[in-house]
Amino acid sequence: MKRVVDLNSDIGESFGVWTLGDDTRVLDHVTSANVACGFHAGDPHTMLQTVRAAHARGVAVGAHPGYPDLVGFGRRPMTCSPDEVYAFCLYQIGALAAVCRSEGVALCHVKPHGALYNQSCTDASLARAVARAVHDAAPDLILLGMAGTEHEAAAVKAGIPFAAEAFADRAYLPDGSLVPRSREASVLHDPAAIAARVLHMVGDGTVEADGGSTIPLRVDSVCVHGDNPEACRVVEAVRSALDRAGVQVRPLREVLSQ
Amino acid sequence: MKRVVDLNSDIGESFGVWTLGDDTRVLDHVTSANVACGFHAGDPHTMLQTVRAAHARGVAVGAHPGYPDLVGFGRRPMTCSPDEVYAFCLYQIGALAAVCRSEGVALCHVKPHGALYNQSCTDASLARAVARAVHDAAPDLILLGMAGTEHEAAAVKAGIPFAAEAFADRAYLPDGSLVPRSREASVLHDPAAIAARVLHMVGDGTVEADGGSTIPLRVDSVCVHGDNPEACRVVEAVRSALDRAGVQVRPLREVLSQ
Amino acid sequence: MKRVVDLNSDIGESFGVWTLGDDTRVLDHVTSANVACGFHAGDPHTMLQTVRAAHARGVAVGAHPGYPDLVGFGRRPMTCSPDEVYAFCLYQIGALAAVCRSEGVALCHVKPHGALYNQSCTDASLARAVARAVHDAAPDLILLGMAGTEHEAAAVKAGIPFAAEAFADRAYLPDGSLVPRSREASVLHDPAAIAARVLHMVGDGTVEADGGSTIPLRVDSVCVHGDNPEACRVVEAVRSALDRAGVQVRPLREVLSQ
Amino acid sequence: MKRVVDLNSDIGESFGVWTLGDDTRVLDHVTSANVACGFHAGDPHTMLQTVRAAHARGVAVGAHPGYPDLVGFGRRPMTCSPDEVYAFCLYQIGALAAVCRSEGVALCHVKPHGALYNQSCTDASLARAVARAVHDAAPDLILLGMAGTEHEAAAVKAGIPFAAEAFADRAYLPDGSLVPRSREASVLHDPAAIAARVLHMVGDGTVEADGGSTIPLRVDSVCVHGDNPEACRVVEAVRSALDRAGVQVRPLREVLSQ
Repeated sequence: MKRVVDLNSDIGESFGVWTLGDDTRVLDHVTSANVACGFHAGDPHTMLQTVRAAHARGVAVGAHPGYPDLVGFGRRPMTCSPDEVYAFCLYQIGALAAVCRSEGVALCHVKPHGALYNQSCTDASLARAVARAVHDAAPDLILLGMAGTEHEAAAVKAGIPFAAEAFADRAYLPDGSLVPRSREASVLHDPAAIAARVLHMVGDGTVEADGGSTIPLRVDSVCVHGDNPEACRVVEAVRSALDRAGVQVRPLREVLSQ
Repeated sequence: MKRVVDLNSDIGESFGVWTLGDDTRVLDHVTSANVACGFHAGDPHTMLQTVRAAHARGVAVGAHPGYPDLVGFGRRPMTCSPDEVYAFCLYQIGALAAVCRSEGVALCHVKPHGALYNQSCTDASLARAVARAVHDAAPDLILLGMAGTEHEAAAVKAGIPFAAEAFADRAYLPDGSLVPRSREASVLHDPAAIAARVLHMVGDGTVEADGGSTIPLRVDSVCVHGDNPEACRVVEAVRSALDRAGVQVRPLREVLSQ
Repeated sequence: MKRVVDLNSDIGESFGVWTLGDDTRVLDHVTSANVACGFHAGDPHTMLQTVRAAHARGVAVGAHPGYPDLVGFGRRPMTCSPDEVYAFCLYQIGALAAVCRSEGVALCHVKPHGALYNQSCTDASLARAVARAVHDAAPDLILLGMAGTEHEAAAVKAGIPFAAEAFADRAYLPDGSLVPRSREASVLHDPAAIAARVLHMVGDGTVEADGGSTIPLRVDSVCVHGDNPEACRVVEAVRSALDRAGVQVRPLREVLSQ
Repeated sequence: MKRVVDLNSDIGESFGVWTLGDDTRVLDHVTSANVACGFHAGDPHTMLQTVRAAHARGVAVGAHPGYPDLVGFGRRPMTCSPDEVYAFCLYQIGALAAVCRSEGVALCHVKPHGALYNQSCTDASLARAVARAVHDAAPDLILLGMAGTEHEAAAVKAGIPFAAEAFADRAYLPDGSLVPRSREASVLHDPAAIAARVLHMVGDGTVEADGGSTIPLRVDSVCVHGDNPEACRVVEAVRSALDRAGVQVRPLREVLSQ
């Protein structure tokens, strides 16, 4: 049984008057917060409040850069050049880094958001653009991404630490990729089932894929979502299950150093 | 005669496909570049190219944060709370700082843009928000602003270095403030006359105000504009006049250390 | 006792993934919907769904144009020229008019939003810019605004119909203007008290102002808000009180034709 | 020899302080202007000035809706749902229609811009979304697009008039599609050669494709660009060649009615 894992969640996805998710509730249970940086969500004032809230609870802060697509929440695939992606990742990471500095917080990691995350899993040039931006913003930042994808290859190439995440509530295909959201049963909903599944992921390093086969899964961090009350219950169930199983839930940097 | 002065200009005010000004031509003559940070102009890719171009010519780089008003170019007065101003200045400074870091450039100063500049000259709470953001982003950054205004008071209060700028091509009122752009003769156009005037500003520490009186003017840096061919000729005339007069034109940090 | 009045509410103020208010619940009780047009809230897809929802309930649709300030929700005062205001009102009204046309709905009125509403109450040039935009977009559109302010004067000057609104839940000053939100007791919260107050407004044409005096108030339409559950209870209480009192609650055009 | 053809150009692609192209010069030679509607270029004030300038020269006005991507100028492919595309086309068409109405101009046609144009050439669901938006905004609007593509099929299906355009300065593949901009020789530059080519397109209904074969090309309108001085010379050369050849250059509606 693995003894230590990080729990990460996307946070700070409000914008102006609009709120999304119950950040406070999620922050009580996770160890890493991926903070939206203004392009798909998260205006500067929200970013500041989010970093403050994470810091108050001892939660490590990472940047969560996305496509410049507010109305689409960064979820719509776009065709941007690697140079564009490099520049806007650098921009967003730097913006959040300054917000962190103002609060006495050290920025810890970077996880690309939404369509940028998905496209850079399979597009090496995008993944390298992201990894280079992470490296050039500050060389000790961790890239948090999907194990075995271009994320990991790009991190290695850029010479930056990589942390592999697994998705608590997403179904996997036999090749280790996610079942697309467009398909039924792509997202799991039952807190107890999800918690049990996370224990397998973390403890055995495996997950049952779509179709019933058991596949290996490397897990430095488990991603949970908190954008609705049901999701918050999942976060609580996962954290509680890990605690009860004696798994230490620790920020990424501690996980990677073990 | 003062022996050393900085020459600053707003740079990097293109956006996407749209270009503004002739940055390369201006960068050949100034010692400090105020780089737009994305809110009123200057997308991330433009920022990167601008920092690169400034660095290649040995020009010091500063952040030029503005209101979130692209269509109005940050020139329209807005009523933002000090907390909002603090947060979006921090955001923009941080974004440019990361771009600088990626190019091996140290961010040197911050100069608020447009309506934010003007409003924070007279509104102490806004000026303090700007100065606090400068301080919290990195404590050795210089605030470049208007001498004798709330800019200077706020810099002192925040404990950050302040540099006083004079405007080469703007008419002054007897109280040391600028003649509003809405009034005639608010902007000077003749390169030779402007250059002669700058020599007085720098050499004597005075300028002839609207109405004919001579008023004192503290000058660490002279602001010139390069947003049209005529303006570029002014830049060249001013630099050439300073060189001929034996005034050393040096980046802000050198000026302040003398 | 006045026999007929309109009940209006701001609707469609969601944006992308972010929702605001409980539009469906409010639409069950009002007769006019002021639909956000994309500048302060309300992306095109949201606008379409909002018009559809209003139409399905027989609620008249109006445009609710605001400043181009998404992160500030159009609530931050801006200094735009009358030409700019004219152009962006025309733009927003036209955008919503096309959305209405696609659903077989006739656009009925225009009510400026937030800071544009407030600034144009007292700034004649802004009010005229709004009224001219309303006129030029379609000459039979009604301008919904505050009685006795520049809104009304501008509507008269532009030759367009004007409807006077009163605010169910806002405190009034003795001069008929609203108590600023920055002051305590500027917003009323008790549904029963608000409903009773609306009956006075509509029945007697008066309201008790701050300080206790009774002032006259012309009311073609009562504005209610639905951006939180408490507000929705107010809407329900007001509508129910009007119904019980035998006041006919009808769309603006019917009210004005009586 | 065909006796009549329209000449169209993208116009009004400035934004705020930024100008693009020499609209006045182009408007002296074309008969249809595709006016940017705010999403990829063209703020409301620019739209108003553009419509005024076109109208003053008797040039027909069309809407040129694009993706919501200012920094990418609407040229970056995005994955939007047909419902999103329908809604934002409707929005942009309506916005421009109101601007036209204010100037006493009848909106004549719609031509999708940039990546939306290209993607809807081959994606039937996008093309239908565009065509439905055109139809629902006003049923007599002409869809201006590429002959033989999904543009034309969608127009037929939506029951709206379709006009086929050819590109004066773009190289064609043997299948009638354009040589991608990423390839060399995709764009022609010599004004005389382009003008001669346009005479073939219009007179013979053919063009010499990449590789040397002659392919048929249906042409109701020839698209020319005016975004740089060289392009303006092309516009002038094309118009002059058509005039000398006795081809009538007339707005789209006249062309379609013949």
